[in-house]
Amino acid sequence: MGLDPDFEQIRVAADRIAPYIRRTPVLDGGDLGLCDRLLLKCENLQAIGAFKARGACNAVFALDEAVARRGVVTHSSGNHAAALARAARLRGIPAYIVMPRGAPAVKRAAVEFWGGRVEECAPTLADRESTAARLQVETGATLVHPYDDVEVIAGQGTALKEFAEDHPAPEVVLVPVGGGGLLAGSALAARQLWPGTRVIGVEPLGADDAARSFSTRILQKQLAPRTVADGLRGALSERTLRLALAHVDDIVTVTEEAIVASTRLMFERAKLVVEPSGAVPIAALLEGRVRARQVGVVISGGNIDLERLPWCPRCNA
Amino acid sequence: MGLDPDFEQIRVAADRIAPYIRRTPVLDGGDLGLCDRLLLKCENLQAIGAFKARGACNAVFALDEAVARRGVVTHSSGNHAAALARAARLRGIPAYIVMPRGAPAVKRAAVEFWGGRVEECAPTLADRESTAARLQVETGATLVHPYDDVEVIAGQGTALKEFAEDHPAPEVVLVPVGGGGLLAGSALAARQLWPGTRVIGVEPLGADDAARSFSTRILQKQLAPRTVADGLRGALSERTLRLALAHVDDIVTVTEEAIVASTRLMFERAKLVVEPSGAVPIAALLEGRVRARQVGVVISGGNIDLERLPWCPRCNA
Repeated sequence: MGLDPDFEQIRVAADRIAPYIRRTPVLDGGDLGLCDRLLLKCENLQAIGAFKARGACNAVFALDEAVARRGVVTHSSGNHAAALARAARLRGIPAYIVMPRGAPAVKRAAVEFWGGRVEECAPTLADRESTAARLQVETGATLVHPYDDVEVIAGQGTALKEFAEDHPAPEVVLVPVGGGGLLAGSALAARQLWPGTRVIGVEPLGADDAARSFSTRILQKQLAPRTVADGLRGALSERTLRLALAHVDDIVTVTEEAIVASTRLMFERAKLVVEPSGAVPIAALLEGRVRARQVGVVISGGNIDLERLPWCPRCNA
Repeated sequence: MGLDPDFEQIRVAADRIAPYIRRTPVLDGGDLGLCDRLLLKCENLQAIGAFKARGACNAVFALDEAVARRGVVTHSSGNHAAALARAARLRGIPAYIVMPRGAPAVKRAAVEFWGGRVEECAPTLADRESTAARLQVETGATLVHPYDDVEVIAGQGTALKEFAEDHPAPEVVLVPVGGGGLLAGSALAARQLWPGTRVIGVEPLGADDAARSFSTRILQKQLAPRTVADGLRGALSERTLRLALAHVDDIVTVTEEAIVASTRLMFERAKLVVEPSGAVPIAALLEGRVRARQVGVVISGGNIDLERLPWCPRCNA
């Protein structure tokens, strides 16, 4: 599984991916009325609408030419799948994306838009993993895990590096937690560049493996996650837990009601399209789970079905 | 009605309102795929969610102290009403806002949030004007028209001034047209700072008084406007037509279908919450009414009912 990444690898990643990703703006979240000073690092404005473009580009462009030529493979139906397909297209290599039969057409379309080759499998983790393993054997492609990967974690850390270069340290920085790749990368960058800032992960109460693993210091299973924040249903790996325990100050949880209200608040007051996973840190402020005057937030993504907005009773009837 | 504004008044306005408005970001609209280089001056991220904060602040803070103390009055149920209430609150003076009975509760709430005093009237232009006139007599308040006002036009021009300070001149800049205040102010600023740039106003075909007035060079009536772009239902005044004829290169019209599709595109690809009026210039690119490689757009506002998004069949059933 390789070594854990360090800040130097984030610095290398930033240089490597600079031509392929967007330096996203940091916008003022003052209109949300949640603390004295709120800064939003807007990865919803990143290529493919999520920070995942960073880790995928870093993993793809870190490969040796001979290895890269055989392609990359992943099993994901979310933002990582589209990000990996895009990164592979930019490098001119094949991307094999394992998706369960019945995955939303819009997600499949995003992968195919970037030229990714979709391989269908049964909707079980076992079949996803075995299909990906078979493709690796058949094609020689390299597996790029959505978060349990040194280069992916280093790539995700570049968002916080930019944030810290552009702004003085806030008291607290909030980062959503799913598999923990963004949190681990952000914490590594914050420790180096904003050493006095508390780094707090925020997770849905309905998918709270990270909070349980963090407090017990032992990797806990994700048991039947139930949350509208579809990007945060994954579970920490041994590696992302180890990095969180080393560099993160706390992991807090938020309710579904606060996630929906925060997503709406981002649309209504900040005028930004944010997916529920991206609004999870805002929910921690809304519910009072985190109190501070100056807060930085990594808004992780903006890919949401505009015909099924979570607050709309008619759309969700 | 006073003289026409010039660029010097925009410069004065920019200094006057700087403490009260936000220098909004210019975001990259490349993901929209509409031209080689598309830059979005995001007034949807302005205070109160629209450029109207600029003109209202300039008009309110330009008043002499003795005059200001008696307050300001307007008849508007849209973004100008909230902007004037906010500007008056910032100066510590009363704002009287004439609104027709039955105006949407959310619009009344926005005015009241800023301490504006709502005066109800019958839903006719005659009653709106006579109620506003009565309030002027009773209170001594100054009428601040939403667009037929020198200081309001100068204030609206500050958005383009910022845009031009931050970016080199594009081939074309597109500005939505309702009453023509934003277009007139933008054209004055562009003539000075981007002299080689074509300035084009964009208007819904269902409210095309400005296009007809511009092409005939005679002020035409707005006949029963029918458009989802509720901010653009107003008609040019003699003053805004005169300024458009002097400084604007063209006014083009767009269909309702293109306005709805462009609003959705802004949500889906640019990840920005934009009201239909703000997406009207994007519709001109989508429909091919304007062709250019490098385009700047003033995105005028983001105040849209999130429970009735115009593309949602269930919400509009």
